[in-house]
Amino acid sequence: MKKYQKEDTTSYTLGAFPTIELIKNKPESVAWVYLSSKLNNPEEIIKLCEANNLPYEVSDKNIGKLSDKENVYVVGVFKKYEDTLTEGHHVVLVSPANMGNVGTIIRTVLGFGIENLAVIKPAADIFDPKVVRASMGALFQMKIAYYESFADYQKAFPEHLLYPFMLQTEHYLDEMKFPKKPSSLIFGPESSGLDDSYLTVGTPIKIRQSSKIDSFNLQVSVSVACYEFMKNKK
Amino acid sequence: MKKYQKEDTTSYTLGAFPTIELIKNKPESVAWVYLSSKLNNPEEIIKLCEANNLPYEVSDKNIGKLSDKENVYVVGVFKKYEDTLTEGHHVVLVSPANMGNVGTIIRTVLGFGIENLAVIKPAADIFDPKVVRASMGALFQMKIAYYESFADYQKAFPEHLLYPFMLQTEHYLDEMKFPKKPSSLIFGPESSGLDDSYLTVGTPIKIRQSSKIDSFNLQVSVSVACYEFMKNKK
Repeated sequence: MKKYQKEDTTSYTLGAFPTIELIKNKPESVAWVYLSSKLNNPEEIIKLCEANNLPYEVSDKNIGKLSDKENVYVVGVFKKYEDTLTEGHHVVLVSPANMGNVGTIIRTVLGFGIENLAVIKPAADIFDPKVVRASMGALFQMKIAYYESFADYQKAFPEHLLYPFMLQTEHYLDEMKFPKKPSSLIFGPESSGLDDSYLTVGTPIKIRQSSKIDSFNLQVSVSVACYEFMKNKK
Repeated sequence: MKKYQKEDTTSYTLGAFPTIELIKNKPESVAWVYLSSKLNNPEEIIKLCEANNLPYEVSDKNIGKLSDKENVYVVGVFKKYEDTLTEGHHVVLVSPANMGNVGTIIRTVLGFGIENLAVIKPAADIFDPKVVRASMGALFQMKIAYYESFADYQKAFPEHLLYPFMLQTEHYLDEMKFPKKPSSLIFGPESSGLDDSYLTVGTPIKIRQSSKIDSFNLQVSVSVACYEFMKNKK
């Protein structure tokens, strides 16, 4: 038992909520569940473990080794897995760096009803416990796949309509009509956004903004883009 | 010179970017500007100080006292002020608690072209250097006022159309038509949202979401609400 490192083949859910989402959505990936002796009402988690034939153990020592935080009473140990994206709509994050950000974005994207996320390398490690925690377990309800390059992603989904979000265009989101075809909403790194090479990818779009700020942050851009895109698709 | 406390009548901008926004937008509130001996190109800030008759001083000692962070090379000392909101559209935050959140939201709201922010107490301290920093100086371009209660706010702007954002309603944002009248978009605390008492305030609205998440976070809700509300107003 040791703290998570990127090279590990297993990772951890820290807290009851993400652990429950893990067990419900990816039971085949769970290796072990640790409970703290301080956990109130352990029955829900124990019942869930037993229903899925998962080993669990009350072990304050192991929980202490895996988590820095005082208030973590449940830890799930899971084997990292790879998803295959399906043909629905996708969000594509190009080289996101901030793990808390990625977790929050995963949760937001799922909330708007998009269930496929492509991540273009280099990128933050999706399985880092910080991402899992920030996503509040939404990670396990989303299909997520890494690609070595945007070209690789494009080859895998040649029929998708592509919409890179970037400032270097005059197509505004609030004037767009989106055809009802499988589509990919593409966003650049937090600090710099998408570079000019994406100007020739599909239909670049920008979110209308006041000149009083430089740009919206990544979470705001993804939220507004997903909202507007999904609006007439329910 | 000492670290900021809520009771202080002055606060600080930590970093060149927010200090420049402070001087450009609220020169009358600036008491003093400190520069680090490590600052590259101090000319821009010095010129700005001189143009506004503001005292400045190279003082690594004072900067070290006011900031924990290594990479802060400019600090602005400013007198806390009170704005009066104008008759345009408002965002109203009811008891926000997280200072980084409030800073990011201020920047986002300004980006969508809304320039008045009402904050209902109890609430995070808008002038805390953490808020100023997270807002990247957007704070100084926004009119911000505190109110003791929502009733006080409502008394001050009796003509405003009121839109509380909350889950306990069946009016969806994506079906709304907003009349072109001065309006207030109202949001609850990060953890709990607006309570049921807001169901009788104006027209409650919710953002359509998948059942796979409990709710969007505050920043996502404010972003999407401001985007949709401002869409046909430019």
